[in-house]
Amino acid sequence: MPPAPRLGASARAQVPPFTVMTVLAAVAGARAAGREVISLCAGEPGQGAPTPVRDAAARVFTDGIPLGYCETLGLRALREQIAGHYRRWYGLDLDPDRICVTTGSSGGFQLAFLAAFDHGDRVALARPGYPAYVNILRALGARVVELDTGAEVRFQPTVDLLAAAHAQEPLAGVVLASPANPTGTMIRDDELAAMLAWCARHGVRVISDEIYHGVTFTGSRGTCAWQHDDSAVVVSSFSKYWGMTGWRLGWLLLPADLAAAIDALAGNFALCAPVPAQHAAIAAFTEPAYAECEAAVAGFARARALVLDALPALGWTDVAPADGAFYVYAGVADLLGPYADSVAWCRALLDAQDVAITPGVDFDSGRGHEHVRLSLAPGPGAVAEAVRRILAFQAAL
Amino acid sequence: MPPAPRLGASARAQVPPFTVMTVLAAVAGARAAGREVISLCAGEPGQGAPTPVRDAAARVFTDGIPLGYCETLGLRALREQIAGHYRRWYGLDLDPDRICVTTGSSGGFQLAFLAAFDHGDRVALARPGYPAYVNILRALGARVVELDTGAEVRFQPTVDLLAAAHAQEPLAGVVLASPANPTGTMIRDDELAAMLAWCARHGVRVISDEIYHGVTFTGSRGTCAWQHDDSAVVVSSFSKYWGMTGWRLGWLLLPADLAAAIDALAGNFALCAPVPAQHAAIAAFTEPAYAECEAAVAGFARARALVLDALPALGWTDVAPADGAFYVYAGVADLLGPYADSVAWCRALLDAQDVAITPGVDFDSGRGHEHVRLSLAPGPGAVAEAVRRILAFQAAL
Repeated sequence: MPPAPRLGASARAQVPPFTVMTVLAAVAGARAAGREVISLCAGEPGQGAPTPVRDAAARVFTDGIPLGYCETLGLRALREQIAGHYRRWYGLDLDPDRICVTTGSSGGFQLAFLAAFDHGDRVALARPGYPAYVNILRALGARVVELDTGAEVRFQPTVDLLAAAHAQEPLAGVVLASPANPTGTMIRDDELAAMLAWCARHGVRVISDEIYHGVTFTGSRGTCAWQHDDSAVVVSSFSKYWGMTGWRLGWLLLPADLAAAIDALAGNFALCAPVPAQHAAIAAFTEPAYAECEAAVAGFARARALVLDALPALGWTDVAPADGAFYVYAGVADLLGPYADSVAWCRALLDAQDVAITPGVDFDSGRGHEHVRLSLAPGPGAVAEAVRRILAFQAAL
Repeated sequence: MPPAPRLGASARAQVPPFTVMTVLAAVAGARAAGREVISLCAGEPGQGAPTPVRDAAARVFTDGIPLGYCETLGLRALREQIAGHYRRWYGLDLDPDRICVTTGSSGGFQLAFLAAFDHGDRVALARPGYPAYVNILRALGARVVELDTGAEVRFQPTVDLLAAAHAQEPLAGVVLASPANPTGTMIRDDELAAMLAWCARHGVRVISDEIYHGVTFTGSRGTCAWQHDDSAVVVSSFSKYWGMTGWRLGWLLLPADLAAAIDALAGNFALCAPVPAQHAAIAAFTEPAYAECEAAVAGFARARALVLDALPALGWTDVAPADGAFYVYAGVADLLGPYADSVAWCRALLDAQDVAITPGVDFDSGRGHEHVRLSLAPGPGAVAEAVRRILAFQAAL
């Protein structure tokens, strides 16, 4: 008998592991050894869901609300509340049938990418950027075009960058994120309008990641792509502003020409988003819930101000303007001392001072070895102490 | 300026709509008009989650358990309970790190298919079958090989059918489902062992859908593929036996050579399964929860016996042996009367007698127009009345 053929994982499952997982494992090890570690790694707000949402969730179970499948697009009462949120924040009047509640923004991205892009399509995005965009797109067979961005373009795509990539070989789409992870930078309203107009002229689909809207520090909560053009797929989430990470609940705004496709795909890939969380999230749009979220954002703002004030002392360079999200992303190339890269530097910082921040390599395969991402999500107390320890670490290099 | 290029949905998003959705819309319309419709369409048990699970869910919120992201594979305490379930039902001793908690079995299928199959791979499955298998696989670029099955092979794949398809052009995988939807038939233990051995010899990955295990009527709760070979991906769920459809919680058993790939894919496509539901589901493996589930299965069994007893009077043909799941799948070709197919026949049944059952076209693009699926999930009272009305409808044809 011939030897049995080998099985093994598919080529498209060859997803690179996240370096941050190694950091988080080291944090867990240090804590298990009794050390008091300040972890500024995660993009996860500590405050949790607003009280009205948690109370509503408890009532779902004590009142015995039926929890069978719901409409694929999501509970109509929740979609109506989401539509109300767009009136409140953006002055937009949305049809609830153009909203699809998803299993986190993760569930939304996969539906958007499947509906908009075929195998082999070229999709552009900024580098540095959120690594799951690249990994999901590649697993689905898209060809990812990473646009190298730096402080000169505020780490965001531009019409010029898109046009240059499109001239090489046509793009099918682009992922925009404002505020962005890991940089926190936002796309200015006029720049967003210009990119949307360019994309409409050239048949390039925009996927607009707006999950950090509201977690912003410079006056604007963020421009919704639909304020300019409703052919974009808008991706949003209850995870960040509302602090509901583990609940796995988000939503898409559906362009008219993708609505039926996304509904059909969602019916097969997900059936519906988690129903208990959908019932509870209806309470996310009450005044007390908004007030709790704004208080949390004020805490992130204090943490941000602490870091920005400390930047001259820290000597970090190439700092992205942290307009929103929970992050400060900066270069430490001149501060590496005996360490080969930011991975080794972050590890040494953790060992010496019990402070964990994330090396940039997960976000930028090109220059991330010279960058770090510091999360503001744990709030001003933790961030202030972390900055003191980082300064002590750098002074000893 | 040249005309703007058209956008539009991707080719792979061209998922056929489910006919059952049309039926469900007609049911909703009839009910809105004040008619008392018995709907035997859904594969959704009516009893809901066991009491200990609902109580535990309420405590998650009243006790303020943190609901941030958890490990991608799922809460360790839940995975240990799932491992205990495999000892209890199958005598298997599982490593909790070979279990991945997923967002329903839907979330599990997409991870399994991505990890196991590349674009262009041929994957076989039985026709009739669950339509989302086909739709997910095609959207991910696999080539689906539908194996036509009938009562002579109990609507299940066989080694002969697999070998014939493999001889035409090699298969990369096969999806097995036991009990199956829509037929309810189970794969005999010796047949499962033979197919697993054949697949191992020929390098064909088995995806084993075991979500209906326990909802069975003939003595066996179902054989787990891992009782024979742990290179299969096992897909399971809290939706059916535990009645937790809307919660969106399931799990995978991970073959050694896919464990890292599925963990990495899940970290990008999902981050983690819904955390509140994971905490609650730990209580699904308590004795009172099992007892409630067994009582629900006894109700489905009474409903099944009612339909099987009525089959001679109904005159339905080509009936699949409904060993498990919630369904009776049968041919009505000789009973169509003035109606062109089972779609029109089911619509007429609804209009005349306020009973909704599902035409077979969603499950079998070849012969489904001559078949219907009747769901037992609403329980014996509803099913008994539905059978009386169907007999009256047929008598009037």
